Amino acid sequence: MEETFVPLRGIKNDLRGRLLCYKQDWTSGFKAGFRILAPTTYIFFASAIPVISFGEQLERNTDGVLTAVQTLASTAICGIIHSIIGGQPLLILGVAEPTVIMYTFMFDFVKDRSDLGRDRFLAWTGWVCVWTAGLLFLLSILGACSIINRFTRVAGELFGLLIAMLFMQQAIKGLVEEFRIPHNENPNLTQFIPSWRFANGMFALVLSFGLLFTALQSRKARSWRYGTGWLRSFIADYGVPLMVLIWTGVSYIPAGDVPKGIPRRLFSPNPWSPGAYENWTVIKDMLDVPLVYIIGAFIPATMIAVLYYFDHSVASQLAQQKEFNLRKPSCYHYDLLLLGLLTLLCGLIGVPPANGVIPQSPMHTKSLATLKHQLLRNRLVTVARKSISKNASLGQLYGNMQEAYQQMQTPLVYQEPSTRQGLNELKESTVQAATCSGNIDAPLDETLFDIEKEIDDLLPVEVKEQRLSNLLQATMVGGCVAAMPILKKIPTSVLWGYFAFMAIESLPGNQFWERILLLFTAPSRRYKVLKQKHATFVETVPFKTIAIFTVFQTIYLLICFGLTWVPIAGVMFPLMIMLLVPVRQYLLPKFFKGAHLYDLDAAEYEEAPALPFNVATETELGHGASYEGEGEIFDEVITRSRGEFRHTSSPKITSSTSTPANYPRSHLSPCLSSSPHLGELRGERSPRARGNEPHSPMTGIGRSPLNPSPS
Amino acid sequence: MEETFVPLRGIKNDLRGRLLCYKQDWTSGFKAGFRILAPTTYIFFASAIPVISFGEQLERNTDGVLTAVQTLASTAICGIIHSIIGGQPLLILGVAEPTVIMYTFMFDFVKDRSDLGRDRFLAWTGWVCVWTAGLLFLLSILGACSIINRFTRVAGELFGLLIAMLFMQQAIKGLVEEFRIPHNENPNLTQFIPSWRFANGMFALVLSFGLLFTALQSRKARSWRYGTGWLRSFIADYGVPLMVLIWTGVSYIPAGDVPKGIPRRLFSPNPWSPGAYENWTVIKDMLDVPLVYIIGAFIPATMIAVLYYFDHSVASQLAQQKEFNLRKPSCYHYDLLLLGLLTLLCGLIGVPPANGVIPQSPMHTKSLATLKHQLLRNRLVTVARKSISKNASLGQLYGNMQEAYQQMQTPLVYQEPSTRQGLNELKESTVQAATCSGNIDAPLDETLFDIEKEIDDLLPVEVKEQRLSNLLQATMVGGCVAAMPILKKIPTSVLWGYFAFMAIESLPGNQFWERILLLFTAPSRRYKVLKQKHATFVETVPFKTIAIFTVFQTIYLLICFGLTWVPIAGVMFPLMIMLLVPVRQYLLPKFFKGAHLYDLDAAEYEEAPALPFNVATETELGHGASYEGEGEIFDEVITRSRGEFRHTSSPKITSSTSTPANYPRSHLSPCLSSSPHLGELRGERSPRARGNEPHSPMTGIGRSPLNPSPS
Repeated sequence: MEETFVPLRGIKNDLRGRLLCYKQDWTSGFKAGFRILAPTTYIFFASAIPVISFGEQLERNTDGVLTAVQTLASTAICGIIHSIIGGQPLLILGVAEPTVIMYTFMFDFVKDRSDLGRDRFLAWTGWVCVWTAGLLFLLSILGACSIINRFTRVAGELFGLLIAMLFMQQAIKGLVEEFRIPHNENPNLTQFIPSWRFANGMFALVLSFGLLFTALQSRKARSWRYGTGWLRSFIADYGVPLMVLIWTGVSYIPAGDVPKGIPRRLFSPNPWSPGAYENWTVIKDMLDVPLVYIIGAFIPATMIAVLYYFDHSVASQLAQQKEFNLRKPSCYHYDLLLLGLLTLLCGLIGVPPANGVIPQSPMHTKSLATLKHQLLRNRLVTVARKSISKNASLGQLYGNMQEAYQQMQTPLVYQEPSTRQGLNELKESTVQAATCSGNIDAPLDETLFDIEKEIDDLLPVEVKEQRLSNLLQATMVGGCVAAMPILKKIPTSVLWGYFAFMAIESLPGNQFWERILLLFTAPSRRYKVLKQKHATFVETVPFKTIAIFTVFQTIYLLICFGLTWVPIAGVMFPLMIMLLVPVRQYLLPKFFKGAHLYDLDAAEYEEAPALPFNVATETELGHGASYEGEGEIFDEVITRSRGEFRHTSSPKITSSTSTPANYPRSHLSPCLSSSPHLGELRGERSPRARGNEPHSPMTGIGRSPLNPSPS
Repeated sequence: MEETFVPLRGIKNDLRGRLLCYKQDWTSGFKAGFRILAPTTYIFFASAIPVISFGEQLERNTDGVLTAVQTLASTAICGIIHSIIGGQPLLILGVAEPTVIMYTFMFDFVKDRSDLGRDRFLAWTGWVCVWTAGLLFLLSILGACSIINRFTRVAGELFGLLIAMLFMQQAIKGLVEEFRIPHNENPNLTQFIPSWRFANGMFALVLSFGLLFTALQSRKARSWRYGTGWLRSFIADYGVPLMVLIWTGVSYIPAGDVPKGIPRRLFSPNPWSPGAYENWTVIKDMLDVPLVYIIGAFIPATMIAVLYYFDHSVASQLAQQKEFNLRKPSCYHYDLLLLGLLTLLCGLIGVPPANGVIPQSPMHTKSLATLKHQLLRNRLVTVARKSISKNASLGQLYGNMQEAYQQMQTPLVYQEPSTRQGLNELKESTVQAATCSGNIDAPLDETLFDIEKEIDDLLPVEVKEQRLSNLLQATMVGGCVAAMPILKKIPTSVLWGYFAFMAIESLPGNQFWERILLLFTAPSRRYKVLKQKHATFVETVPFKTIAIFTVFQTIYLLICFGLTWVPIAGVMFPLMIMLLVPVRQYLLPKFFKGAHLYDLDAAEYEEAPALPFNVATETELGHGASYEGEGEIFDEVITRSRGEFRHTSSPKITSSTSTPANYPRSHLSPCLSSSPHLGELRGERSPRARGNEPHSPMTGIGRSPLNPSPS
């Protein structure tokens, strides 16, 4: 992305890029067929459940002015509009916790003022939204998103981990609440006598830990050893929603003496109950707000604008991380402009605005990567099976697979040249692999040749970039408003388990988190990290430097987390994270070597430094690796939790006889794994060797001292 | 073991064998130092907890005549005597469930008879024990244990799985009971109103699943990636007792409104309460029993004698499975004689007799194997570190390690010649390995050479065979009688979790269980079984045959399990398992090929058949293995759940280029793994290539068609 502050140029660039692939955004989605429902339902639950819970929170805090009906409606409306005319369709919109906190503060301000009061609360927030929208327009037009480039991994991942902590905090808080009498409830009800309260709390523990445990297990279903393939796929795709259903079912098992309120369930008014309509006509009350408050609304508006600018952009950035190998361009400026419009709309219809959310947005991209992998895999397996049944040789087999793979690649105008090259290399390397295995012309025996595994090893990380899953999930969120009587059957404790699940699901792939784990890894066990997929820094940066960097980041995280506990000021924690930008740019380089900082946290404004190739550094972890190609050190950490999604382990060479440490099983793989073309074969390029954006100045910059030429 | 029915010869042979190593049984135990406490506490808990629970069951069923005090006392007395003058010190004695059932039936028979009644119950059971002891003497003298050889894996493992099912059934039953009002309790107490009962049940779920989950995790601590080495070792060694403590602590967290009876805790009279002494003077009442009942006592005595004969021998057999590579001889006849004596003693002092128990006995052997492994490992690591710090070459290093290893081998008179040879081969192969790695004379760098892992890979399965752990655990069980007030703090729900834990812990290594799992393994995932340690049959027997054999065994198991539900007759389920002996010997060979049956269930009375080396059979699992030495197919399944206890994966060769599928990390290992001497290097021999007993007719019989000579 170009760093430009010329008015409107950012928006223009964005629009030009996205319009070129707009049609393909739809056709590609429809081509996926019913399989698109897997990521859709996955994200729908991840999106709807927190929104409902935030709605309940708002209802308590605003005396019932806003409820889950309004938060769901806002999420659905904004989501549908964004999925159709938005820029980056991977971005998921929703009413987020900071919005809830801001609205709570604003209600507290309004409720005791005689000239505003509870009745004019929505009218006043309408004005806040008007101002916020104006500020967002301004930021967008002036190209404020250009500095997103300066938001490096260190800031994004810190924010991601902070959100995970807040989710986990909510889960724990919620569970503790299950043992207490809820606010605004009649404490004389049967279910609130001590014995039933205790029983409710214990039941809540069972339900939430049950959901958490089974949901985490179900995500790994693809690598289970038991059950047929379709069952494993089904559980991996729909396991989490299924578990919500199952544990809701379990919550109905105790009958008889157990009173109706145990376990506690979601509470929200039905959308057809009186009062649930109040907000829609708020626009006519807006002129009744005294002028001084209309002007005063500018103050909260600035805070919300800064918050949204940051939140929305970082959510979008995390959904487009380099590891995903996205093909289509980013769209930060235009999306911010659209967010301004959506905020205006929400303000005028009296619902809290929605913005880009974490961790749902990166979860969305991950689930689409799994989808794309499944689609490619199924097609190639079919082709391979057909070839084998025709007694094809290994050479023919790979030729056919190559052809099928290319058919599935939709040519994009914005495709980088290197992508096409990656495909050529795929062909090249497979032939080379076949030659190496020594039986290129021999017919193949399927009993000896594990096609599915072979193909899993070959496929690169690719994402099904389209608009359909986003549109569908937003529509389903809208459907929740009507389905409220059904949703009310979900126990709140299942909700808390789900919050914990979301927090844990967002961790893998977060290098900050991986580094924290590395700190706690026993020195004698660090070789295990090297055996798995791991980020570059594990091998290139001395352990002590990793430790110092991580401890600094952890302290920063804890300060941010502490800030969220401070009333009012707490909402501004994004400012604290934005402060990381100058800290990263000016302060950190004084304490860390350029090369190390580059590996720990690559910034696009820094030149890739010539790496000091130092054996002492190399063997820091008790491990002497030899580089046989950049691709081998590809960071596949992001996909670690996706079950069978990626099999290829980066082969670590420790032996003086140069034998790879981990061979895939098949008779082809030894040859493939030790091939210097492994990375390219998989269509993977070093995360640092290309930028995510087509115009990235980083594209093509390799680490020449080590890896002079990949071909 | 010689199959002899000459009176007393079996006992004589047994005594001769064990006396030779009696002194070493003690010295070896004391040499282990404080580390002996790890297996001791592990087995103490596994032994005491069920005994306490059975005591509670007896108390309910016998109107309080027998309580946990008596079951604990019996277990302690029999355990101490057996550990000192018993034959096989690996065998753990305890009051078992069948004994409880028998005593319940006997009490039901006695209580309504005016000439016996509750008061003469113990006097009458005294007579039953007298008869039982007589029968056991007879069986022992006549050499009945000789036919233990005919109890093949199929019978032992079926019995093991049955016991696991009974333990799991008890866990589930116990949990369900937590929701109900217990027998013999005042239903008007606060803790039995519906709300508190429900709360108690839910709390029980939390506690028992908490214990089960954490205990299972803690057993894997040795392979954790986090935490320092000693912490991981400590958790792996003492994790299970620790978890019982922790969850008991958790059960005290809810205070305030929660009534004292929640969660429910162990209930047993203190040993100093009146009535707890009644049983000790039962001998003086025995002559008051009418003659007809003294004679009638013969009927239950035959049932108990058959039961004990079977139970005791199979428990002993499972504790001495071939996979453990035991060095000291078995002692079935003499142990049965001693059991007779112990039963007599128990009868006369009015406590229920103890016999050899499953799964505690094999658990005991396993934990001693872990201990031995730790001791060997620590010694060798020290030697290796010292060598490296002196800049020793690889050749010197292995020479030193070899020396240290041999120092730790106590020479036994009964040692098989092949064992000594195994050590020579270790030396031979290490030198060969060093040569192969090409740098035998180069100094070593510890950063490049993971000593601990290397040593783990080299060490064979060995068991610390001694008497100390058994004596200590039995003494500790005795201490429980005095510690009753402390034991009473353990919640019953923790007990149920522990029962489930024991059931699950007994599964790994049970080939029957492994085969059941194999049936549910998706065909495309079966290669994963081959990648891990696995039994021979996985590669040599067609899948269909494995399936039929396993289904037959499963149906048989379910029939036995069903039998345990039948009143009175249910106690005789061991007869059903004994019936397996003729079934195995005469019926099964009609349905299965000799070679297959041999791999699935080797019987010592059968000659090892020449294996039809058949590629079709070989590749049945989609895997073309090539034999490079019998040792590579060594069944290490037994140790799979022991965390880091055994690392060596049997390298599966699938490549036409003959490259092993899984290389250990270090630069030595590639060479080691592909070496045809791998098996011998580890001191492992094929389970079928040697018998467990020194006189076994099987010793030395290899499968010559495949493996003409291992040297």
